[in-house]
Amino acid sequence: MNLSLAYLGPTGTNSETAALAYADWLKQERQQTSTLCAYPSMALVLQSVARGKVDRAVVPIENSIEGTVTIVLDTLWQADNLQVHQELTIPIFHGLLSYASSLKEIQTVYSHPQGLAQCQKWLENFLPQVQLIPTKSTTEGIKLLKEDSTAAAVSSPRAAQLYQVPLLKADIKDSSDNCTRFWIVSCDKSENGSYLSLAFSLPQNAPGALMKALEIFARREINLSKIESRPSKRSLGEYVFFIDLEGNSQAPKIKEALAELSACTEVLKIFGNYSKLDVK
Amino acid sequence: MNLSLAYLGPTGTNSETAALAYADWLKQERQQTSTLCAYPSMALVLQSVARGKVDRAVVPIENSIEGTVTIVLDTLWQADNLQVHQELTIPIFHGLLSYASSLKEIQTVYSHPQGLAQCQKWLENFLPQVQLIPTKSTTEGIKLLKEDSTAAAVSSPRAAQLYQVPLLKADIKDSSDNCTRFWIVSCDKSENGSYLSLAFSLPQNAPGALMKALEIFARREINLSKIESRPSKRSLGEYVFFIDLEGNSQAPKIKEALAELSACTEVLKIFGNYSKLDVK
Repeated sequence: MNLSLAYLGPTGTNSETAALAYADWLKQERQQTSTLCAYPSMALVLQSVARGKVDRAVVPIENSIEGTVTIVLDTLWQADNLQVHQELTIPIFHGLLSYASSLKEIQTVYSHPQGLAQCQKWLENFLPQVQLIPTKSTTEGIKLLKEDSTAAAVSSPRAAQLYQVPLLKADIKDSSDNCTRFWIVSCDKSENGSYLSLAFSLPQNAPGALMKALEIFARREINLSKIESRPSKRSLGEYVFFIDLEGNSQAPKIKEALAELSACTEVLKIFGNYSKLDVK
Repeated sequence: MNLSLAYLGPTGTNSETAALAYADWLKQERQQTSTLCAYPSMALVLQSVARGKVDRAVVPIENSIEGTVTIVLDTLWQADNLQVHQELTIPIFHGLLSYASSLKEIQTVYSHPQGLAQCQKWLENFLPQVQLIPTKSTTEGIKLLKEDSTAAAVSSPRAAQLYQVPLLKADIKDSSDNCTRFWIVSCDKSENGSYLSLAFSLPQNAPGALMKALEIFARREINLSKIESRPSKRSLGEYVFFIDLEGNSQAPKIKEALAELSACTEVLKIFGNYSKLDVK
């Protein structure tokens, strides 16, 4: 059976690069064919898999410079059936695409808010006076460049090739170690792998409840690699906590911790166990 | 002496509403006059106070629906001299401003990404086909409405009055409890108040270091109200942790905890003690 993979399109985005890397891994390691399906927003990518329109989704979860992609966490929390199956990390390359012949001519720069944020120091240093205009993806602004030679887009060198637009600057990212973690999400239960992600909300008006929950892991020396607060969207100061940890939910130590956590949280959602893929 | 207060402008933004509420509090409670200074971006608002161009800045730190305003946390971490003096929370009202006579005519909606995100469910339900265009502030899109009656802006009913644009829908926010926390930031040392915010980074390659840091608070029953991870911007998986807690840094229990924390973190920054203002 051919697998359908949803990603944030159109062609040329970093999500497509990740989806292509995953499709390649499926072919090499699982002899599995797949087809990529572009969607116009991250919410629609995740909805497409939650509603069974596609088999899997490839979604960015965190960038090394800009941090968590909050819409993905919020949608995972709201959906009841999404599980994380694999993780892959790809390097991110940002270039400046434009028909301008020099930086001096540029007045406007388009990109996805993540693209603008990941290059904010470079933009402040080299283009301090330009207007930055956020777009829905890193490639959306490219189509506007032909009409306006004072405009530029922050996008990948790969997109410059695909859309045949000149690459005025090849590498403008703020940090040499710019990369993004992607999760492969589907509706199937996910129990294999040594990484576990979960989220919980706490009973209302319970001071110290967060420390009590974290202490469950500390006591068992379970290593937490990340803690993130997201608003519960009910009331200011009420949060959903997202945790990444190392371990499998079937291991006795983790099983006990999850049972204890379940008793002291209001809602606990386990996004499943997953492995990290080594992609080239 | 008259105080200058920086905020994200132009007139009509929620930041201006917060700055006006603070100016009113200063006048009523401190017999202190102040002048508001609008800046075009959150980074410039904070830079203006860090560089001594203005006395204080009023910046949004967290919205009850959309969560942390990450640029503010990142800038506080990078700056070495900014301290939090007070906190105030204001309710947020979002309306749909447009010259269109009905929702059916609308094809484009402008707003700050926070405004679009805080109304995303309403927009999905009532305007599923429109193009959402992010702008630098909730008022920036308003000036585009006169030329295009198929366009709308998500902004405050107050902005509709100020800019004299029809309010097509008066209340479109996703949650009845939409409010935003603002911090008053200056370069002066901040030691009064019963709320404390801090951030730290951990030594590299130290598994369990986060739990060790959190355990310092748990052992002393110090209540943490929020934990947030932000990328260190050096390498994926390396974070700066932001913590809000209750207590004063001069209290023995807190003093001990901070000393112990200082010994097990790489960099520790105390943003100061502050009080929460009750503004109307």
